[in-house]
Amino acid sequence: MISKEQIKRIRSLHKKKFRDQHGLFIIEGTKMIQEALKHSPNAVQTIYNADDSFIDFESSVENIAINKKQLNQISTLQNPQKHIAVCRYLKSSSVSTDFIIALDSIQDPGNLGTILRLAAWYGIDQVIASKETVDVYNPKVVQASMGAVFTVDINYVDLKEVLQKTDLSIYGAVLNGTSIYQKSVRKEGILLMGNEGNGISDELLPFIQHPISIPQFGKGESLNVAMATAILVSEFFRHSDGK
Amino acid sequence: MISKEQIKRIRSLHKKKFRDQHGLFIIEGTKMIQEALKHSPNAVQTIYNADDSFIDFESSVENIAINKKQLNQISTLQNPQKHIAVCRYLKSSSVSTDFIIALDSIQDPGNLGTILRLAAWYGIDQVIASKETVDVYNPKVVQASMGAVFTVDINYVDLKEVLQKTDLSIYGAVLNGTSIYQKSVRKEGILLMGNEGNGISDELLPFIQHPISIPQFGKGESLNVAMATAILVSEFFRHSDGK
Repeated sequence: MISKEQIKRIRSLHKKKFRDQHGLFIIEGTKMIQEALKHSPNAVQTIYNADDSFIDFESSVENIAINKKQLNQISTLQNPQKHIAVCRYLKSSSVSTDFIIALDSIQDPGNLGTILRLAAWYGIDQVIASKETVDVYNPKVVQASMGAVFTVDINYVDLKEVLQKTDLSIYGAVLNGTSIYQKSVRKEGILLMGNEGNGISDELLPFIQHPISIPQFGKGESLNVAMATAILVSEFFRHSDGK
Repeated sequence: MISKEQIKRIRSLHKKKFRDQHGLFIIEGTKMIQEALKHSPNAVQTIYNADDSFIDFESSVENIAINKKQLNQISTLQNPQKHIAVCRYLKSSSVSTDFIIALDSIQDPGNLGTILRLAAWYGIDQVIASKETVDVYNPKVVQASMGAVFTVDINYVDLKEVLQKTDLSIYGAVLNGTSIYQKSVRKEGILLMGNEGNGISDELLPFIQHPISIPQFGKGESLNVAMATAILVSEFFRHSDGK
């Protein structure tokens, strides 16, 4: 059972202000909950199961039965799945890595989510983002990441400060840079990706040591930033394929 | 001025059934309209401008002034932009090309749209898709394509029939295929990509001559299909970079 007060509190997590206040966020769907329990079991606070569709997630996490109406009230989706969990904010493990993706004001939740999923696939442990970047606990980011929020560290930082201090080489995706296909890159460095509409901000441009581009073969005006990140990351990793 | 009847008719284009019936679809935003006029001027039937924000698109297309309420009624967006156009279905030019992307039941509009945008960037003129694939004139596909619907041919076909008849080599993105980084590919062939959840359907698997994969370096469970398409397409084109 769940009280009106509790529903109100969970609903409040749809907004960043209240997520930050409570240090909690929502995940939805069986698969996402399984990923959370696998990678960050301590982060999962409570699982809500609609319509007696209790699943044994083999964990000690509290399970609460709710009805369909309550599900619709707490879900962020138009067509809610039957399982929703409330999770605690994740702790950054601040690992030190030699390849980092840096995001300058990415606005679209789907873009941030799929970039995190990409990072998880390539084993990139750390993504850093400017404070203007969309919130990682935004439900759309979490969903699009397909659980990668639980395996990839994302830190919101002052990018200028980080770029000033780092010893790593700084690569920036720009128009009219060196073709990535002509440049031999290894998986070491910071790959800086800019905002969907405006690219990398003026104050960060001077820090780029290696301006790189994906050559344009056709008439397309531009590439989606998440797609461009995928193509560039692939180039950094293609030589280290040990399989 | 615009009548209630006209508003109703434009609104009906939010649904595939009526788009097919009228052979018309909606595009939104200045940039999209400019792309349409640039690449397929004859496709643009009428431009609707809200709040006297008339823009001279330098074309002979009919311009109609509407008010904000009417804009909200005909737009498919939560936050409509001030310009909307109704376009005619595009004619397939059925170009014959030596590199084709084939999509087997892609469901997410954002995925189809960004794959078309990718194709436009790499100059891939033809994308073919199974009939179960999301409709290219779905407003979310059109928006995500950023105008690529006007430069890339997409044909809905019986994929089995096409794969049976083609002389091109058939590459399929599967789990446990040959690492794309170990395989030397040139931009010739059909690249077959499967559904978001289920991959390539059983009846198409036997046609794959070259099963390929993006090696998994980290703990990520999977890659988004549009991201995977980007990485694979990049591998097919990286050697042909003439710049």
